[in-house]
Amino acid sequence: MIDIYGDRISGNCLKVKWVAEHLGIAFAWHDVNVVTGATRTPALLALNPAGKVPFVVLPGGETLSESNAIIHHLAEGSALIPVDPLARARMLQWMFWEQYSHEPYVAVCRFQLRYLGHSAADLDPRLVERGHAALALMEATLAQRRFFAGDAVSLADVALVAYTRVAHEGGFDLAGYPKVRGWIGRAEQAIGIRD
Amino acid sequence: MIDIYGDRISGNCLKVKWVAEHLGIAFAWHDVNVVTGATRTPALLALNPAGKVPFVVLPGGETLSESNAIIHHLAEGSALIPVDPLARARMLQWMFWEQYSHEPYVAVCRFQLRYLGHSAADLDPRLVERGHAALALMEATLAQRRFFAGDAVSLADVALVAYTRVAHEGGFDLAGYPKVRGWIGRAEQAIGIRD
Repeated sequence: MIDIYGDRISGNCLKVKWVAEHLGIAFAWHDVNVVTGATRTPALLALNPAGKVPFVVLPGGETLSESNAIIHHLAEGSALIPVDPLARARMLQWMFWEQYSHEPYVAVCRFQLRYLGHSAADLDPRLVERGHAALALMEATLAQRRFFAGDAVSLADVALVAYTRVAHEGGFDLAGYPKVRGWIGRAEQAIGIRD
Repeated sequence: MIDIYGDRISGNCLKVKWVAEHLGIAFAWHDVNVVTGATRTPALLALNPAGKVPFVVLPGGETLSESNAIIHHLAEGSALIPVDPLARARMLQWMFWEQYSHEPYVAVCRFQLRYLGHSAADLDPRLVERGHAALALMEATLAQRRFFAGDAVSLADVALVAYTRVAHEGGFDLAGYPKVRGWIGRAEQAIGIRD
């Protein structure tokens, strides 16, 4: 049994929930509101000094944070991590890329529009441009393979689908990215995403 | 033999060089100027569509990008990756944290001051504040352990030392972070950093 602290509006938090469900890992979910800053209460900071969600408390009492590190730990030894070293490296490449070159644009635009009530005109044009650059690179990549690490679904798809499937909520029209749209359906089905 | 494409002014690129040197992996270094935008020439985009350095071309001809994914691939099976699953998870946690919560502030301030010729007054105060928050979290963590994944040096230290050791070039005075200063020396020595 693990404890997951997170907010269901956060793709980063949902990644952890999906992997636990996919692998049949028992968990207790603890809601933490990311809009009101509840991640930085003294009780939560004592558990996770980084002051962010998601984080998990493992059976031994250890806390682990960073969504992609958490899902990598939960999925060790499972089919969500390729055995082939190069495919595994490719998976990690896309997971680091997701956090540096996708999430700060696609997820941030969505958060501002949907949860902070900003209008599209208020969005920083640089964020929108870089979000589209991320989607364009995904589209070009998916012209060559079914999933990001190769032929089978992996944690790279878990990481990337989390905010790509709700990119429209950030003002990113996926009509221009047909291969990305096809992959979202494949990834949701392979991972077993229901929410 | 691997080919490393990078710029020695970039900590992300130096990580790859250091790990290759530490592990005795033969490599050819190809200089790519990050200030002039040379990463986006047609020839380099053909090798690495993400248009960034570092990237490597592996013996089989495959390209791999994202500094932390590259060093993870190079170091598989070495002592730079802990065998204990929890220590390995902790290592990855800090590597993802480095790219999301440290590099975008500490490295970006340094790049603007040192390589774009901006003055300290031009820096976005939000970047400076978050850079100091990152250093403060490192300081608190190093009160409890010698290296970020535990008692031994790991890729987490490679990733974090790259820009922390030059943080002063970004206007971050490390005088207030004595444990970080001590760890920089330990990490440089354990990794074998000479430049």
